[in-house]
Amino acid sequence: MIETDGHVAGTFPAATTESVADLGEQALIARIQRRLPAPAGWVLSGPGDDAAVLEPARNQLDVLSCDALVEGVHFDRGFVAPADIGHRALAVNLSDLAAMGAEPRAALLSLALPAALAVADFDGLIDGFLALAARHRVQLVGGNITRSPGPLVVDVTVTGSAGRRRVLRRAGARPGDEVYLSGEIGAAAAGLESLRGGVSARDGSDGAGGLAACQERYRRPEPRVRLGLMLGRGRAATACMDLSDGLADAAAQVARASGTGMALDAAALPIHPAARRWFEERGVDPVRAALGGGDDYELLFTARPRFRRRLQAALRRTGDLLVTRIGTVTADRSVVLRRGGGSDEPLPAGFAHFR
Amino acid sequence: MIETDGHVAGTFPAATTESVADLGEQALIARIQRRLPAPAGWVLSGPGDDAAVLEPARNQLDVLSCDALVEGVHFDRGFVAPADIGHRALAVNLSDLAAMGAEPRAALLSLALPAALAVADFDGLIDGFLALAARHRVQLVGGNITRSPGPLVVDVTVTGSAGRRRVLRRAGARPGDEVYLSGEIGAAAAGLESLRGGVSARDGSDGAGGLAACQERYRRPEPRVRLGLMLGRGRAATACMDLSDGLADAAAQVARASGTGMALDAAALPIHPAARRWFEERGVDPVRAALGGGDDYELLFTARPRFRRRLQAALRRTGDLLVTRIGTVTADRSVVLRRGGGSDEPLPAGFAHFR
Repeated sequence: MIETDGHVAGTFPAATTESVADLGEQALIARIQRRLPAPAGWVLSGPGDDAAVLEPARNQLDVLSCDALVEGVHFDRGFVAPADIGHRALAVNLSDLAAMGAEPRAALLSLALPAALAVADFDGLIDGFLALAARHRVQLVGGNITRSPGPLVVDVTVTGSAGRRRVLRRAGARPGDEVYLSGEIGAAAAGLESLRGGVSARDGSDGAGGLAACQERYRRPEPRVRLGLMLGRGRAATACMDLSDGLADAAAQVARASGTGMALDAAALPIHPAARRWFEERGVDPVRAALGGGDDYELLFTARPRFRRRLQAALRRTGDLLVTRIGTVTADRSVVLRRGGGSDEPLPAGFAHFR
Repeated sequence: MIETDGHVAGTFPAATTESVADLGEQALIARIQRRLPAPAGWVLSGPGDDAAVLEPARNQLDVLSCDALVEGVHFDRGFVAPADIGHRALAVNLSDLAAMGAEPRAALLSLALPAALAVADFDGLIDGFLALAARHRVQLVGGNITRSPGPLVVDVTVTGSAGRRRVLRRAGARPGDEVYLSGEIGAAAAGLESLRGGVSARDGSDGAGGLAACQERYRRPEPRVRLGLMLGRGRAATACMDLSDGLADAAAQVARASGTGMALDAAALPIHPAARRWFEERGVDPVRAALGGGDDYELLFTARPRFRRRLQAALRRTGDLLVTRIGTVTADRSVVLRRGGGSDEPLPAGFAHFR
């Protein structure tokens, strides 16, 4: 068990009871530096100076985003392992770059750590972060570490590059465009609900690992970096956004930014089968649950029907990622869900951080 | 008085008791956007999309840094006003850019807000941030807002630009170089101590506003952006670092990065007169207090004696900022304080975030 000083109780086993407060900031930075691969040639100065110095990507625009994970708001250390926290913190940021069609380059990692956090958990968080960074060839070039008198806060800034006319924006959808969605939705919401309820997805009660896949999706979202990049480079999408706060929220935001409406086809929504089962068994409409549930980190994008060949070419370069046509951009500004009977209903609201 | 929900008690008067939780994330972002000046031409996409899109500075390197302020660690809302928090959060980051010789360009602002934070205090924080940003022509191009179940956390990322051979680093000092320091030290430490002790610097007990100036220095540090830029452009310094964690810490870090030692002359240290008085009246050696005290955000730099003309030319371009020669870079690796009698003593350690 992890020793605590009363601030936060660690709930997963650790290899050591040494806490980050025993080591101090410099030693923690050194632990990160030991884990870093050799820097790319365009990193002229990495962690260890007052700031990082990078060679810009030639003839490209800089794309920057930041997003924080706060313990008790975005994750619960009771059922999310340190490596998952590190993974998620980078994944949600890479998802923002993907939504812009940008190629990720560098990250800064800002940590506010409870004094009682076990060093083994700190290492796990860094390892989860760096494993995802390596897969997307993201360089960790700087950051800072401080103490938190409250929750663990992991704040990440990412930079990426994109060609001048290759950037994907939320504004850009036009009436008549088709609406597409990557992957399957609802899985992260079902995964989170089952984790909160203490349901073990590995106890045999769940057929074929379906719920385990949902929990994994919540813990380790997969940013759609390659899809975003191919859509941007191929000029295949007119607008794009990621689903951090749910499909309903993303649809509303793209429509509002574009000055359009959107009609989504309920029957077309690619709801994860295990998530559908999870919600149906609990008497919840799986369509509404999937629309409102956050944390899926899929991409919603719109495309012009007459450029469908561009889209097909882009999708051929994204491997076997599922992409589904789920609706149409409309001229009238309402955002609606179209059920089989031809009736339209307004979309449920997404996850609101303060409510 | 500010209404609270038990998380955090606001302690300064506000124009309204509406809290950030009453508004939600989108409305708070809109409040920030309303306060932004027209974006510069190189900001191709600012707040409101998944990420910011910037035109890089032509033929320049990108310089990036991030630093967080955590309530209860870096500030106390009992004696630091919301506008001061916003100012400080940007200032400490601009200080890092200054230490690299970089010209500031853009900032991302990541906020974790207690639900009970008054909207008026949120506005004050943003106003303090944007006022300093305007003075240094920094564009706020993105960020994120989330709820905090604990302290207020203000995490800022800044980007800047610097010419290829104009970047200032910590490593680069050589034996025989002279050591310089901008401004005066000890003021922030005395200001913080007196604020913690509830000493009002405006109650007449303090002559000529000396202690008030110290408190102001703590609340609103002045990043030495122009000095850093002129030192870099003029190739006038061999190494540079800012004093966020105190002079002793900065001297030790520059010496370690450069593989040298450093001897500082106690009599030469530019200790703020009111700070000196504050410490002496309390039986504390002002030299040791000034060496160990953090939050001054002055620049420590080294320069080669035979390039003194470069240094003089750079300093002529920084207005009337005091710059003092305080010591020498040595070949032997120890970092020492030289007192009048010729005796050397080791430097006290700086502020350690975890101890």
